[in-house]
Amino acid sequence: MGSINLVEKVFSKDIQELNKKINAFVTFNKNAINEAEEIIKKGIEPIPIGIKDIIFTKGIRTTMGSMLYQNFIPKQDAFIIKKIKKFGYVVVGKTNTHEFASGVTTTSTIFGPTKNPHDLSRISGGSSGGSAAAVSASIVPISIGTDTAGSIRIPASLCGVYGFKTTYGKININGVFPLAKSFDTLGFFSKDFKQIIDVSTRFGLYKNLKINKIRIGIPKWYELPSELRGYNEELVDKVENKFLDYVAKLGYDYSFVDMPIAQKYVWKNYPIIRYSEATSVHINNKDKWDQYFPDVRRLLEKGLEYKAVDYLEALTHKNEVKLELNKISKEFDVLLTPTTPIPAPTIDEVSGKEDGIIRTILTYYTVYSSYADAPTISIPALKIENLPVGVQLIGGYNNDSKLLSIAGAFPVSL
Amino acid sequence: MGSINLVEKVFSKDIQELNKKINAFVTFNKNAINEAEEIIKKGIEPIPIGIKDIIFTKGIRTTMGSMLYQNFIPKQDAFIIKKIKKFGYVVVGKTNTHEFASGVTTTSTIFGPTKNPHDLSRISGGSSGGSAAAVSASIVPISIGTDTAGSIRIPASLCGVYGFKTTYGKININGVFPLAKSFDTLGFFSKDFKQIIDVSTRFGLYKNLKINKIRIGIPKWYELPSELRGYNEELVDKVENKFLDYVAKLGYDYSFVDMPIAQKYVWKNYPIIRYSEATSVHINNKDKWDQYFPDVRRLLEKGLEYKAVDYLEALTHKNEVKLELNKISKEFDVLLTPTTPIPAPTIDEVSGKEDGIIRTILTYYTVYSSYADAPTISIPALKIENLPVGVQLIGGYNNDSKLLSIAGAFPVSL
Repeated sequence: MGSINLVEKVFSKDIQELNKKINAFVTFNKNAINEAEEIIKKGIEPIPIGIKDIIFTKGIRTTMGSMLYQNFIPKQDAFIIKKIKKFGYVVVGKTNTHEFASGVTTTSTIFGPTKNPHDLSRISGGSSGGSAAAVSASIVPISIGTDTAGSIRIPASLCGVYGFKTTYGKININGVFPLAKSFDTLGFFSKDFKQIIDVSTRFGLYKNLKINKIRIGIPKWYELPSELRGYNEELVDKVENKFLDYVAKLGYDYSFVDMPIAQKYVWKNYPIIRYSEATSVHINNKDKWDQYFPDVRRLLEKGLEYKAVDYLEALTHKNEVKLELNKISKEFDVLLTPTTPIPAPTIDEVSGKEDGIIRTILTYYTVYSSYADAPTISIPALKIENLPVGVQLIGGYNNDSKLLSIAGAFPVSL
Repeated sequence: MGSINLVEKVFSKDIQELNKKINAFVTFNKNAINEAEEIIKKGIEPIPIGIKDIIFTKGIRTTMGSMLYQNFIPKQDAFIIKKIKKFGYVVVGKTNTHEFASGVTTTSTIFGPTKNPHDLSRISGGSSGGSAAAVSASIVPISIGTDTAGSIRIPASLCGVYGFKTTYGKININGVFPLAKSFDTLGFFSKDFKQIIDVSTRFGLYKNLKINKIRIGIPKWYELPSELRGYNEELVDKVENKFLDYVAKLGYDYSFVDMPIAQKYVWKNYPIIRYSEATSVHINNKDKWDQYFPDVRRLLEKGLEYKAVDYLEALTHKNEVKLELNKISKEFDVLLTPTTPIPAPTIDEVSGKEDGIIRTILTYYTVYSSYADAPTISIPALKIENLPVGVQLIGGYNNDSKLLSIAGAFPVSL
């Protein structure tokens, strides 16, 4: 056709204006259109992709949302960037992240908060907030994020898009600024499930499997503990009820699953590992902690408290939790929970309190998969007070293919 | 011939009497002679082997030298035991170990100290003291030990035998009671270098390499720091001088090597990792720590002190030290130091003070290879006041073959 391609569209006036409102992209790649033309010459249709600003992109500023890296331009692409370029994607720019990916609201960043495309007064969730908002607002068809405690799934839930966290270790995280090495994973966002399938196929994470009869397990921990419900009991009830309605309407067999090992260890141990590891990344920068956002700094300070023996013990139980999931995976094809116990709060509601109870609530459902290394996808399935909330599908360890095969059969409510 | 085989010899009256004096073996395998006969039927000459009492042997008591495991009989062989059985070795029994391998003197064990075959009033070194003494006294031609900070090399040095610590990770440690997972390795003892070569060949660790011109590096840290020399300056001087004489007489090119990264990190970081990991292994047994030997218990208590961030930082620098060794390995084929700064002290001298300065002195030369994951062999090269002291050959990471090829060319002084 010789007509405008998808990459050029990102740089159109309308889309650039839209981005300014939402603050999804914080840096654009000036070479994107040239790169797209090179790909077209090879007979491939270039697909524009947004990259979380914590993943190193050669020649393109990568800030981690932090003052300390505001002028940092990587000399090398991260492993995942080299790959996607080969697959014909064009990096059109970098998407906003909570500073050092250490927060679930994408409000503490040198670029200011990313706004939720469904309601500009609300947060996008985080830490990959820019990547989720970018696909939610249809600025790009696909984007990349990282997930350590829910940083892909939480913003996917709040922005009403698919967010797929791959099995721990499946995609090399070389060239991704580390948050907590025992949990850091990569993954993808899209509004269009086909985009998730296409990119996963290219990464060797997906081959269509025929699942005859989907057996659903609902972990008994899907009920939010009372100390967290108190934050907004009415809203939490609505999400849980809509979730149960959704499951019932699916028409598959489902039952409630006891997970005593997970309940004993996950929520107790996860913070010990996560905070210790994150702090160790930044320990040699301690004299500059006053230049970090206050909520991020407070989490780093928290990481100073833990003992080595407690850290090591917390890691030990990881394996037991994985073994429990392996056992459950023989009985159930997928575990289901809401992705977040509430829809997106307002920016005002969370500002200055990013590390408080809102953080514990938003990560409540997502830390399990991080601790268990499990592949997990949030699908845009629920609407609560006209705002999106995701349903989280937890797959068996290393079984990304089966998880995606199942996810494709689930209805969405966009 | 139909005559007595090497395994039967171990059970002869003379050898059993000798063992009682030295206390090298603490348990014998009652099936050993039958097992040897089965091997002979296959046309293979069975070789008796001694196994450190911290390595699980199916059906044979494995105590870790500890009251808590005095009646423990493993249901499975450790990985290395399965292997050596296939190779035609016969496990004739278990050799004394410092409790949980947590000490370098083999004096804190429920079986009482293993004595040095060169002087029964002296220690064998440890923690694999029984394995070293068993080959030193020619009870068996070969034995297996573990090495976390020098537990193979130190007793090899003090008992005047070869002691080979393999590259970290080269032999699977499944079924070995853990001491500190970041450093635990397996290896072999013998008086006869050919035994070391044979077993290493079978484990895929040795293929003869022709080294035309051996280039020797002597780390500048071979000089014992003054705070440790003070323990017995005269003796330390003698060892250092004999060591330099030995090197000079070899006739190879040698020079002194700066190792600033190692000097900055190894001796500072090693204890943080070692103590934290060891304590984490025993943390769930805390109510039973009063049943441990006092020196072992004190080390466990020490491990409670460290912070997770310090532990994680200490691990980070491991890689820098390995990179420095990689660089050095391009210029030098092998690094040489004494294995221990002194010959075997008396049992009286160390009793009750196993975790004191004697421990720091005896491990001073050996912790480097543990931190750097490097293959290292102690060869029985020196005599000091009629007692043996080893020379330690440190090879490049993963280059066990080259190290052994070089070690074969080095003279011994038995």
